[in-house]
Amino acid sequence: MQTREIRLAARPSGAPATTDFELADVTLREPEEGDAVVRNLYMSVDPYMRMRMNDVRSYTPPFTVGKALTGGAVGEVLESRAPDLQPGDLVVSQLGWREHFVAKAKWLEKIPAGPIPPTAYLGVLGLTGFTGWYGLKEIGNPKPGETVFVSAASGAVGSVVGQLAKLWGCRVVGSAGSAAKVKHLTGELGFDAAFDYHAQSPAQALLELAPEGIDIYFDNVGGDHLDAVLQNMKDFGRLVECGMIAGYNEATPVPGPKSLPLVVTRRLLLKGFIITDHWDRRDAFLADVRPLVESGRLKYSETVVEGLERAPEAFIGLFGGANVGKMLVRLG
Amino acid sequence: MQTREIRLAARPSGAPATTDFELADVTLREPEEGDAVVRNLYMSVDPYMRMRMNDVRSYTPPFTVGKALTGGAVGEVLESRAPDLQPGDLVVSQLGWREHFVAKAKWLEKIPAGPIPPTAYLGVLGLTGFTGWYGLKEIGNPKPGETVFVSAASGAVGSVVGQLAKLWGCRVVGSAGSAAKVKHLTGELGFDAAFDYHAQSPAQALLELAPEGIDIYFDNVGGDHLDAVLQNMKDFGRLVECGMIAGYNEATPVPGPKSLPLVVTRRLLLKGFIITDHWDRRDAFLADVRPLVESGRLKYSETVVEGLERAPEAFIGLFGGANVGKMLVRLG
Repeated sequence: MQTREIRLAARPSGAPATTDFELADVTLREPEEGDAVVRNLYMSVDPYMRMRMNDVRSYTPPFTVGKALTGGAVGEVLESRAPDLQPGDLVVSQLGWREHFVAKAKWLEKIPAGPIPPTAYLGVLGLTGFTGWYGLKEIGNPKPGETVFVSAASGAVGSVVGQLAKLWGCRVVGSAGSAAKVKHLTGELGFDAAFDYHAQSPAQALLELAPEGIDIYFDNVGGDHLDAVLQNMKDFGRLVECGMIAGYNEATPVPGPKSLPLVVTRRLLLKGFIITDHWDRRDAFLADVRPLVESGRLKYSETVVEGLERAPEAFIGLFGGANVGKMLVRLG
Repeated sequence: MQTREIRLAARPSGAPATTDFELADVTLREPEEGDAVVRNLYMSVDPYMRMRMNDVRSYTPPFTVGKALTGGAVGEVLESRAPDLQPGDLVVSQLGWREHFVAKAKWLEKIPAGPIPPTAYLGVLGLTGFTGWYGLKEIGNPKPGETVFVSAASGAVGSVVGQLAKLWGCRVVGSAGSAAKVKHLTGELGFDAAFDYHAQSPAQALLELAPEGIDIYFDNVGGDHLDAVLQNMKDFGRLVECGMIAGYNEATPVPGPKSLPLVVTRRLLLKGFIITDHWDRRDAFLADVRPLVESGRLKYSETVVEGLERAPEAFIGLFGGANVGKMLVRLG
C-alpha cells in the first residue's frame, strides 16, 4: 500500500521554513499479528516540535533528518490483526505527519464512543488539555479569589488554563497576539481581562489589568512577558513554566529576565514540567475535564488546515499566531 | 547614658561607600517596666542589608536615611526591669549597629548556658545557619548520593550548606573567591571539590567538577554562576534561591540567565525563600544543628572586625569577599 509522509529535510536555523520539510511517497509494510492499519484523519502540530528539530539533548530525542516527523494524530482503523481493534474504530496515536501507518495496536488508544468529536482528543482532552490542567492544578495550586495570568491565552493550552481558572474561582487575565483574539478571550471564553501584546507591552498591561499583582503565572512564552510578570508577582506566587515559545526560533540563546532576583525577595516558585512525566494523573484529568467538555462549560476552538502537504505551513504558523485554539491538519 | 550608633547617611548608588554611613552619639532613654539595658558585644553584617538600603518595597521595609541601621547582635544585660532577664545574661537581638540599647525584654532572646560561644548564635546557630539548613533540607530535599553545588561556599550560609550536605550523604562542590578559600573548603570543611571563580569560569569548572550534572544548587550569588548551573543541572533538579549577591550593588538590573528555558525541558524547580517566614521550623533546626556544632562535626569560621566605627568597612567587605565564614564586628 502506497501512502505519503512529511520528513525533516533539514534542521531549521532560526525560524523554520517550508524548505526544511519534504513530502515523500512510501510503501507501508504488511501488517503482522497484533498490528493495525490506520488512515489518519487529523494530525496535531505543536510548538514543542520545534525543539525536537534541533540536534540537542532534551526530554525527547531529536527528530532525524531524512525521516518522517511524529506527533499526535487521530485516525480510523482500516484493518486489524489485534483483538481489541475493529475496522472503523477511531484511535489516537503519536504517528502524525503521514496519511496511513501500520503499528502495533498496543501503541494506539481507542477513542470512546460519545458526543465528543474525535479531534478533541488531540486538544482539550489530549496532551494540550492535560498540560493545562496539570500545570495549573498541580503546580499553580489555585485558590478562589487569586489572580491568574496566562500568556498565549488563546492557544490550545492557554485557553484551557484560563477557563479552568475561571471555573475554579480565580480572576483571569490573558495575553494574545491580536485584537480579535483578545475579544475571543474576554467574550466567548469569559476571561476577566486580556490584552494584545503587539499593541501594549506586557509590563504596562499588567500594571493596568492586575494592579494588585499576580498569584499564578502560566507561562507559555518566556521572553519579555516573563520579565514583566516577575515585576508584578505577589509574594509567594507560583510560575508554572510550561513553555517559552519566544525563544524556540532563536539561533543563539537570548538573555533571561533581568527581574529574576525577585524570585528570592518575593519567595516565588518557578517549576518546569513536561506532561509525559505525569501519566499517573491522566485519569484524574479526564474525570475532571471530560464532563466539562461534554456539558459545554469548557469551550475549545480549532484552526484546521487542509492536506498533509500543508502541514509544514500549519506548523510554521504556530510561531506567527496563525491559530486560535488547537492547530490541526486534516488529512486524506 | 551616652552611647554610639551607626546611621545610614545616604542611600548607596551601586557599591556602598563609607560615606554612606555616619557614626553618631546618642543618649539612651530611661528603662521602663519590662525593659532591659544591653551592652552589645558583637554585631552581624549580612549581604541582605544592602537591599534594605535601597528605597524599594521588599520583604522588610527599607532603612531610613538619618536613622540607625539594625541587624543581629549579641549583648550582655547591664540592667533589667523584666523578670526573665538578669544582669550578666547574654541575649540575641535585632538591635545591632549600636553599642548599647534599651528595649523590651520580650524582643530579646536569652542565649542558653553551655559550651557554645555566644557568637555562634549570630552565625551557625543564628539566621545564617538556619537559612542554610532550611533551604537545603526543605527546598533542596537532598538524597544520599546526589550532587550539591553551593556558591559563595566559604561564606556564613554556604559553609553550613556544604557541610550539612556532606553529613547527609551528598557529593558537594563549592565555589569561592580565592585559592585560600578553596583550600579551606576541600580541607577543613570536607567538600569533595571546589573552585576559585576568579581563576576559572563557573561553566568550565562545573563541567570538570560535576561531570554527571547537579541535583541541587544552593544559590547565594545569581549572575553567571546561575547561568552555568542551569546548563549543568540534571533533570528534576532543584535550585534553592537564597540570594543573588552578584546583583545587589547594580544600579540598574542586569540581564538574567540565557539558559532559563532549560527550566522547562529539564523540569527544574527554582524556589526563593526568606528565613523569617519559617520560624515554625526553628526548633527543628536547633535540634538538628546544635548537637553537630557542640560535637564539632559542623565547623564554622568567623571574621571579626574590631570597633563600631569599622562596621561600615566590615559590611562593605562582604561584597569583596573579605570574610571567611561569618563576618562580625566586635563592639566596645
